Amino acid sequence: MILPDEIIALAHQLADASGVIIRPYFRGSLAIDDKNDRSPVTIADKEAEQVMRELIQKIRPQDGIIGEEFGRERENAEWLWVLDPIDGTKSFTVGRALFVTLIGLLHHGKPVLGVINQPIQNERWLGITGQGAWFNGERVVVNQIEQLHSARLGTTGPQYLDVGAAGFARLSEQCRFTTYGGDGYLYAQVASGWLELVVEEGLKLHDFAALAPVVNGAGGRMTDWQGRALDIHSEGRVLAAANPVLHAAALPFLLNAV
Amino acid sequence: MILPDEIIALAHQLADASGVIIRPYFRGSLAIDDKNDRSPVTIADKEAEQVMRELIQKIRPQDGIIGEEFGRERENAEWLWVLDPIDGTKSFTVGRALFVTLIGLLHHGKPVLGVINQPIQNERWLGITGQGAWFNGERVVVNQIEQLHSARLGTTGPQYLDVGAAGFARLSEQCRFTTYGGDGYLYAQVASGWLELVVEEGLKLHDFAALAPVVNGAGGRMTDWQGRALDIHSEGRVLAAANPVLHAAALPFLLNAV
Repeated sequence: MILPDEIIALAHQLADASGVIIRPYFRGSLAIDDKNDRSPVTIADKEAEQVMRELIQKIRPQDGIIGEEFGRERENAEWLWVLDPIDGTKSFTVGRALFVTLIGLLHHGKPVLGVINQPIQNERWLGITGQGAWFNGERVVVNQIEQLHSARLGTTGPQYLDVGAAGFARLSEQCRFTTYGGDGYLYAQVASGWLELVVEEGLKLHDFAALAPVVNGAGGRMTDWQGRALDIHSEGRVLAAANPVLHAAALPFLLNAV
Repeated sequence: MILPDEIIALAHQLADASGVIIRPYFRGSLAIDDKNDRSPVTIADKEAEQVMRELIQKIRPQDGIIGEEFGRERENAEWLWVLDPIDGTKSFTVGRALFVTLIGLLHHGKPVLGVINQPIQNERWLGITGQGAWFNGERVVVNQIEQLHSARLGTTGPQYLDVGAAGFARLSEQCRFTTYGGDGYLYAQVASGWLELVVEEGLKLHDFAALAPVVNGAGGRMTDWQGRALDIHSEGRVLAAANPVLHAAALPFLLNAV
């Protein structure tokens, strides 16, 4: 399907507006009200989601919204925006500019558009399922590495792997190397051809909805651990691969995990 | 001791010059000669070390040099420069702007000056033992969190922990959270007050020589796992803490590891 220009423009507006909110809170450059024990990440998270919700309600009031901080509105709407204002809150709190704002759009429950936005480094990936992916406006495509022994594997941290830990360890042994840290940023790296595999579990809809269109739009394959396309009902065990051949090589390590 | 201005100026020149070399190689923006299987990180590493060596030889020909790529010269000199042009080569190769250039200076074998330079984000930390630490020219000081349960712990990846893995796991359980990834960048985060603890092992002299003056200059305490100051003979098992109280709380988890 061809997305209306209005929708793509709105996705960029949401990324722009959330970045304006988030930047001053990074590295504690704004004072925090200690009485309420409100951390910069909490305030930035809430204010950024709020500004994105207001924009959607103003420009496309018929659309639904699911956000990490403020819940669900019109979740049965044809178009459903899925917002995670700060994915990688630990990176945010330790002053590392790898956290990202995730803006996903579902059409009848299927991810069709995703934005991965890093407001400090001014990096923005936009992906549209079946059409393409762009990094700061320039088309990106995945890496064509098809052998596990040449592939670089990433995940945010060992503590997030549970039922998949053993399969991940076996997969890791087959890969060129394994790199840790990154959250949603890892999937942008796959889209740009800098990384070949990401395995994670425990993701929520607001974590993965924006990622699949970016990875798949760039020519990669991102699915759950059964190899099924991600949708509103997925459980948040994900495999992102730079290409279908590599995806098929990695999937068996995770298939029997659950 | 007060370092001569000439030495501090040279440290900045080295960071400037290495950044100029490294930037074009990041994210594969330069074509690589496939016949020689030379990766961008390999070329950037070697060229950046070469340019730093030439500057030292030109400006302070009496000083010694130890570099990751080209070995040792005049290693018994009073002043010994220790160079790691790209610390965090995995981050470099996967397009993550967290790798750093490390420039350390030893005086009679003891670290007295360190630079941690991130040339893509244009971030530079400079530390001088007993004097202070600066981030892009502004003074930085560590965080005063003294309780493990409030402290944030970092390490580059679980695969680098060997004899210390069990102690690290127990320490991690006591901390507020554990974050992975970062290499030398982690120690800059401690100096800036964004992170409270880093535990690593297997570091080489060129990995840790620059880090100790930055952490200690900012008021932190960075030692080996016996609590001894790091010097040219240290084995590369390190604990960096935001302050001496926190250091004393974390050290027992590592003391008996070896």
